[in-house]
Amino acid sequence: MIQRLNTPTAAAFFIVSLASLAMAQSGPIIHDAEYDILFEQHAEDWAEQDARVDQRLNELREANGGKPPNIVYILIDDVSFGQMGIPIMNDVSGIATPRINQLAAEGAALTRMYTEVSCTPTRTALLTGRLPVRAGVTDVKGVIVGEGLSAEEVTVAEVLKQSGYNTSHVGKWHQGDINEAFPHNQGFDKAFFPVHQQVQLSLMTPEGARSGNLVGWHSTGQSQGYVIDAFFKPFGLVTGLEAEAGGNAIEVGLEPGEEWTQSHYIEMNERYQRQTLEELDRLASEEEPFFLQYWPLWPINFVQDGEYVSRNGGFQAEKLQVLDGMLGEVFDKVDDLGIGGHTIVILMSDNGLMYQFEGKSGFSQLIYRGGKTQHLEGGVRVDAYIRWPDVIAPGSRMADIVHVSDLFTTFARLGGGKEFIPRDRVIDGIDQTALLLEGDGNGRRDFVYIYEGPVLRSVVKQEYKLHLPAPGAPAATAGVYNLLRDPREMFPFVENSLWSSASFQDMVKRHLKRIAEYPHLPLGTDVPYEGIDNLRPESIKARELFFSRNK
Amino acid sequence: MIQRLNTPTAAAFFIVSLASLAMAQSGPIIHDAEYDILFEQHAEDWAEQDARVDQRLNELREANGGKPPNIVYILIDDVSFGQMGIPIMNDVSGIATPRINQLAAEGAALTRMYTEVSCTPTRTALLTGRLPVRAGVTDVKGVIVGEGLSAEEVTVAEVLKQSGYNTSHVGKWHQGDINEAFPHNQGFDKAFFPVHQQVQLSLMTPEGARSGNLVGWHSTGQSQGYVIDAFFKPFGLVTGLEAEAGGNAIEVGLEPGEEWTQSHYIEMNERYQRQTLEELDRLASEEEPFFLQYWPLWPINFVQDGEYVSRNGGFQAEKLQVLDGMLGEVFDKVDDLGIGGHTIVILMSDNGLMYQFEGKSGFSQLIYRGGKTQHLEGGVRVDAYIRWPDVIAPGSRMADIVHVSDLFTTFARLGGGKEFIPRDRVIDGIDQTALLLEGDGNGRRDFVYIYEGPVLRSVVKQEYKLHLPAPGAPAATAGVYNLLRDPREMFPFVENSLWSSASFQDMVKRHLKRIAEYPHLPLGTDVPYEGIDNLRPESIKARELFFSRNK
Repeated sequence: MIQRLNTPTAAAFFIVSLASLAMAQSGPIIHDAEYDILFEQHAEDWAEQDARVDQRLNELREANGGKPPNIVYILIDDVSFGQMGIPIMNDVSGIATPRINQLAAEGAALTRMYTEVSCTPTRTALLTGRLPVRAGVTDVKGVIVGEGLSAEEVTVAEVLKQSGYNTSHVGKWHQGDINEAFPHNQGFDKAFFPVHQQVQLSLMTPEGARSGNLVGWHSTGQSQGYVIDAFFKPFGLVTGLEAEAGGNAIEVGLEPGEEWTQSHYIEMNERYQRQTLEELDRLASEEEPFFLQYWPLWPINFVQDGEYVSRNGGFQAEKLQVLDGMLGEVFDKVDDLGIGGHTIVILMSDNGLMYQFEGKSGFSQLIYRGGKTQHLEGGVRVDAYIRWPDVIAPGSRMADIVHVSDLFTTFARLGGGKEFIPRDRVIDGIDQTALLLEGDGNGRRDFVYIYEGPVLRSVVKQEYKLHLPAPGAPAATAGVYNLLRDPREMFPFVENSLWSSASFQDMVKRHLKRIAEYPHLPLGTDVPYEGIDNLRPESIKARELFFSRNK
Repeated sequence: MIQRLNTPTAAAFFIVSLASLAMAQSGPIIHDAEYDILFEQHAEDWAEQDARVDQRLNELREANGGKPPNIVYILIDDVSFGQMGIPIMNDVSGIATPRINQLAAEGAALTRMYTEVSCTPTRTALLTGRLPVRAGVTDVKGVIVGEGLSAEEVTVAEVLKQSGYNTSHVGKWHQGDINEAFPHNQGFDKAFFPVHQQVQLSLMTPEGARSGNLVGWHSTGQSQGYVIDAFFKPFGLVTGLEAEAGGNAIEVGLEPGEEWTQSHYIEMNERYQRQTLEELDRLASEEEPFFLQYWPLWPINFVQDGEYVSRNGGFQAEKLQVLDGMLGEVFDKVDDLGIGGHTIVILMSDNGLMYQFEGKSGFSQLIYRGGKTQHLEGGVRVDAYIRWPDVIAPGSRMADIVHVSDLFTTFARLGGGKEFIPRDRVIDGIDQTALLLEGDGNGRRDFVYIYEGPVLRSVVKQEYKLHLPAPGAPAATAGVYNLLRDPREMFPFVENSLWSSASFQDMVKRHLKRIAEYPHLPLGTDVPYEGIDNLRPESIKARELFFSRNK
């Protein structure tokens, strides 16, 4: 967490954040070792290119009254690669995404964007520019856990805030249930967010019980015979919060004793949409440039509700089509405000589909095999589009490897805040500004390390991908896949991979060595649900039970 | 076969073709029973629409000096759905198809085009407008067989010839090795074609022996120890023929005693490209409208030859990228001749990839599961693009079901020759002219019967697909797949299919009943290689052996 020293803060809050107070720093950013190998080979060319890039960024800033570009970063949930933005693919699934297709046509497709394998880690990677495992973030927390993104981590919002941006977060957050992890304590001036995620918000409802998509949580789903432990099933979870930096949060949209239902979920989705549009209005009227995150909850949904709109009809397919229209309103708003040219709009998914619901949700694996929670390309390759009319030619494509953490570093550069990136830890995010400004082929990453939780499962280099052998198995048996010829990772031809075996093993060694030099930081832990002014009695009770059961 | 009565023909030829001499006929075309069910529901609307369509076709004809449109029909081999024409998908495979992408952008994508499961049947379906099983065509003939497309069949070239078109065929033909089956005896004024296919032309070569892609044919591939039968391996096959309607063929490009090699194959591909461009020049200078088929042999290839051009580098991927540039020359030629507006250019694949070479060829299953020879969507769903500047808006999509046989009937309508479609047999091809003229949602087919050889394996209706149960297995165990939600046909949810079980069984019954009313016609059979003026001695010997071994 970075604070501007002139911002008044509560004393307690100041103490929590003191350790991570970061100032402008110089010296090189510490990247993973594999980047150093690339840098060695290209240092001279990249320095030249960076000079051009800086000049171009200056010109753009001058043309925009001295301000760097606004950034609207839209991250949606669990959508397979190919599911949005490609017109012909809309016909494959019977899901129409005309507005996202239009965004893609007006900007560039980042056709080789890698995320982490699930929601929380991907969001951590974006926020911190680091592999989430380095921040102790390895899995998804859907209930009370007393854990979350540590105050020690420096987020992209903190970097941009420090650089003079106004910052807002609207929608899914999913970085934990402790005060220090909340967005208004991680660099966002304003935040509108649910503490947990869609399993709580759409499945743990009476409608969820009748949806046939998950069995056993709601008491109306079956008789309660033989139930001896009344509290095995999570209850009393906090829902939607709203807060400003330096203040406490309040829970909105649910009264004490009131049951959360699917209609609350619908209302929450509509509220975040409305608040995004309102924030755009507000932010555009300010002097400062802005960074706005809109992380919708839809298309994740587990209940068939409302009028059917798609030919597909699946319970998540439907909501992607609805969301497409909503995102269209956001894009239109950006243009209507007259800020389109110098506002970067990025849209991407946070990981692959929830393949457990494949065939019913309406989503399918399409091109890449696997989905959320898996190191396969289907888990970590996503549709990603970027529109920046002043800079990026309509209908372009960039097939260079980009990892979601690169956005951290790239946003920092674009916002003029690279100096606020910490130098005391590994930053995985690589500055890809040259790629955005000079186009396809100007990427600076040719590798990705893919974790499932705390376990390194795959290493990508160029078009090759090593699936790590099981512990104890000989390295020579590990499969190496050629992703261009075999995008579904079906054929680990030994004869095609033997040449690469040692090179991949070296990559793993280098990566582990750097971890030894810069050990992982711990996940933040604290009393859950602190800093919420109007905690409902049932949430207080749930928290008490959490303590008594986990002492 | 239809002949224009004023065309002089050799007497022998006339006798062969007498049985199929077809004259203008009236009365309804006999379609499969499932179409009648659709027709019943839409007769009135379709009649109205057809009146509009006829008026529009008349206007177009008037604007074009009284002539119907030219048709350039390009059919390529064994390319998976999604492999060409979709820019972002080019990055998935590392195969660039900019010219095909451009064709798609200038015209319409037929996003639900179905073919037959392999080369010969798909081509028969296009040529005859019939499920190939009705013409006795069930499999692929790669060697001497004395079989081929029967003279009894009426081809689209015959229909268009009768309607006043000039007709040419260049490239792969693959409809058998008997004289009556050759293109110049099936309605084409001019024909340039190999008798067999790419296994002979690219694999059965010294380079093929060293390619590692097929083992055992060429004598240099291994020592000949224990070989007792010297003639188990095919030899002496005829290669490329050229002919004009009513005349005999001559073999070109290979001298008696000369060995066929990969460089002959390359030369053949380049020759067909050159001849296509020459034919375009010639045909455009004639008074009559024209129908030109260009059926390239590439991308099928089994040898790594020449300079590498694609990032993928697979031995078929390479040739798709090369072919893309060649097709660009064809598209440019159409435009340069000033006939672009009223020349329909169609490009499609004949079936899915040869999945046996997946991972090595550079092609992969991409979106749909399965490939050539299989009833799965990966076998029969292909990329298909149509450009017709006077009529079709750039960048359109048509997601209606179209079967390759529909092109027969649609071309007949567009060419003003519907009256020449025979009324004494089932024509599976449905007139999709309204779809082309009035766009997405105006298709007249919602079903496909999918055969593997002589066996009905799947029935498609709307987005549902029944995989037929094995003989003797109860119908209730048959899987029904929802292709929008499950494009890879992985999840035969019984609960989603029980409602459709009886409806699908009825579809099968109706289909079989119509076959009983209009039984399949036999495949043509005759002495192989008749009608070739310069048969090489080795071909004569191979034919003799064929007789002595199959008497």
